Amino acid sequence: MPSVLILIADGTEEMEFTITYDTLIRGGCSVISAFVPDIAYGGLPGVSPPLAKCSRGMNIMPDRYFDLAECGPDRYDLLVIPGGAKGAETMSKHPSVQELIRRYIERRKLVGMICAGSLAAKTAKLPMQPLTSHPSVKSELDTHFDYVEAPVVISDNLVTSRGPGTAFAFALTLVELLCGAERREEIRGPMVFPSGTPW
Amino acid sequence: MPSVLILIADGTEEMEFTITYDTLIRGGCSVISAFVPDIAYGGLPGVSPPLAKCSRGMNIMPDRYFDLAECGPDRYDLLVIPGGAKGAETMSKHPSVQELIRRYIERRKLVGMICAGSLAAKTAKLPMQPLTSHPSVKSELDTHFDYVEAPVVISDNLVTSRGPGTAFAFALTLVELLCGAERREEIRGPMVFPSGTPW
Repeated sequence: MPSVLILIADGTEEMEFTITYDTLIRGGCSVISAFVPDIAYGGLPGVSPPLAKCSRGMNIMPDRYFDLAECGPDRYDLLVIPGGAKGAETMSKHPSVQELIRRYIERRKLVGMICAGSLAAKTAKLPMQPLTSHPSVKSELDTHFDYVEAPVVISDNLVTSRGPGTAFAFALTLVELLCGAERREEIRGPMVFPSGTPW
Repeated sequence: MPSVLILIADGTEEMEFTITYDTLIRGGCSVISAFVPDIAYGGLPGVSPPLAKCSRGMNIMPDRYFDLAECGPDRYDLLVIPGGAKGAETMSKHPSVQELIRRYIERRKLVGMICAGSLAAKTAKLPMQPLTSHPSVKSELDTHFDYVEAPVVISDNLVTSRGPGTAFAFALTLVELLCGAERREEIRGPMVFPSGTPW
């Protein structure tokens, strides 16, 4: 069973997080969410169970705190960085998250970034390559990457996407890469997309 | 500011809940989530803050417990019943939820149901009218209602929809009904739907 680590922080976009988490579970993956504390407040795990206050006010209780030693590419096949301006800022500025991304890329495991989450590709100093993001952060990325305005961009083992409206396309692409095209089609039907939906 | 009450229970489909909650917040509504305890375990509020274990394992902390006296149509403009088999069963079998739905309909406030959430239209004994649901519960509804296989069905003040894949169309329709067509278009752009998306 493919295993997935998805990061979450205060300010994470709850639709991007939830659509990715839920769709990967439907695909047959095991999914663990890990809370990244704001570096401005120490960036370290707290003593209470984590609770993420998301971008539109929803409270999501993650499965665990983020910890570099226990969240590595030896344990998971895919690392996901969701968007939401504040949450993506917390993740992309966290030195251990930057190090984690480099380790996944080096070990040739998948890394998915969506919306403002793509900023972490820059802070982790990934090399120039095709990438997309939410339009609002395009100007921070388009001199460092080969910026593409497509719903989902696959560049070797880095998969990027644009926003809540592309989150299903992003999540189904990740299911296909981890579990195969047949599995993607199997789970797509019961989700009841309207006819004409372009993913 | 239009006000919305969205119910949640153990087993609620987290994408349907989250897409509806988040999109209505983007539309400019105030949104409160209320936890419905399983009637099999008493159906009454507990002493601890509520925590919903959703259909694919995500833990969402609702804003409050459901309470008939404080969740009525005098306080909110829209009541939403999300899907997820187990969560929808809990809501649709709860006598106070059935009574709540009738009060919203009688006061001519909006009621939205998606996926298996549409079962609550039957248990609340709403009259024969156009309705849709997840295909998996169609056979439980199509003798009681004028069943329509459309992404979103509006019947007077009852709005029904089909599943996670129609949740954006459902939520944007609710925004339009509460906040106007212009507001719907304003929030749709930044969500970055791929070109050709049929909503």
